[in-house]
Amino acid sequence: MRVLGIDPGSRVTGFGLVEKGDIPLAWGIIRLKEKDLARRLWRIYDEIMSIIKEFEPEVIAFEEVIPETYPRAALKLGQAQGAALLAAAQARVPVFFYHPLEIKKAITGYGNASKEQLRYMVKNILGLEEDIPVDASDALSVALYHLQSHQWKNVSSG
Amino acid sequence: MRVLGIDPGSRVTGFGLVEKGDIPLAWGIIRLKEKDLARRLWRIYDEIMSIIKEFEPEVIAFEEVIPETYPRAALKLGQAQGAALLAAAQARVPVFFYHPLEIKKAITGYGNASKEQLRYMVKNILGLEEDIPVDASDALSVALYHLQSHQWKNVSSG
Repeated sequence: MRVLGIDPGSRVTGFGLVEKGDIPLAWGIIRLKEKDLARRLWRIYDEIMSIIKEFEPEVIAFEEVIPETYPRAALKLGQAQGAALLAAAQARVPVFFYHPLEIKKAITGYGNASKEQLRYMVKNILGLEEDIPVDASDALSVALYHLQSHQWKNVSSG
Repeated sequence: MRVLGIDPGSRVTGFGLVEKGDIPLAWGIIRLKEKDLARRLWRIYDEIMSIIKEFEPEVIAFEEVIPETYPRAALKLGQAQGAALLAAAQARVPVFFYHPLEIKKAITGYGNASKEQLRYMVKNILGLEEDIPVDASDALSVALYHLQSHQWKNVSSG
C-alpha cells in the first residue's frame, strides 16, 4: 500500500509519499509563484499528475479543510484542493479525507499539536534526519495517518 | 467579442454565452449528481472544456465568491471554481472576476437585487422569452456585465 498525502495551498502545496511499514518514499513542496490564479491551479494539477505517474500511489489522502476557522482561506484552499482532486479523479486514484485534529491526535497524541510538534513526530516515525518544510511534513502526516487507520480497520475486520 | 459567464456550484453549475451587442448564444446548467466530489469536479472540468471548444469564447467571466458570507459554501465554491478555472487555463482563455454587487447594480440598478429580479432583467436585455434557471441567468449576467464594463473601458480609453 502506497499513499500520497497532499496539503494543498494557494502559495505552497506540500506532498509526501509513504509506503506501508512507515517507509518514506518522497516528499517535497510545490512553490507557486505564478501571479495568475488559473495558472497556479494548472501548475498544482500538473505537478500532482506527474507525482501520481512517477510513484503510482494506490490512494491519495487529504486533510479536511475546516472552513469556519478561516473563511477567506477556505475559498483559496478549495480552489487548490479542486485542482489536486481533479488530477486524482483523472488518474483514477481514490481519495480520502481526514480531520486535522484526528491526524494530530493519532500522530502526536495531542489534537492541538503545533505544526512543528507534528513535524518532529513525523520525522521520528519515518526515521528522517534532514530538514523538512512544514507543508511537506503536514502532507506526510496525512499519508501516515491513512496507513495507520487503514491497518487498524484491517485488524478489526479480520 | 464572445464571453462565457460561469456560475460554479458543487451541485449545479450555470453557464451562459453572450456575444457583443447583447446577443445570447447559449445558456444552461450542469447538474452534478455524482456522489464522489472528485468525480463532480471532473464533470465540471469536462463540460466547461466542451463548451469552450464548441463556442470558442474569447473571455471567461466569474462572479467573485465572497467567502465571509458563507464560509462552508466558500470551500465548495472554491473547489468547483477551481475545476472551471483549470479548464480555462488549459484552453488558454483569459479569466475575469467581478463582484456580485457590482454586477447586480449594473444590470438591475440595485446592488441587493434578488436572483429573480436579476433573471428578469437578464431576460429583458437579451430578449429571451423562455424560462431560464437562475443559475443560468446568474452566469448570463456575469457575461453581460463583462461586455458592459469592457465597452465602457474602450470608450473611456479612446
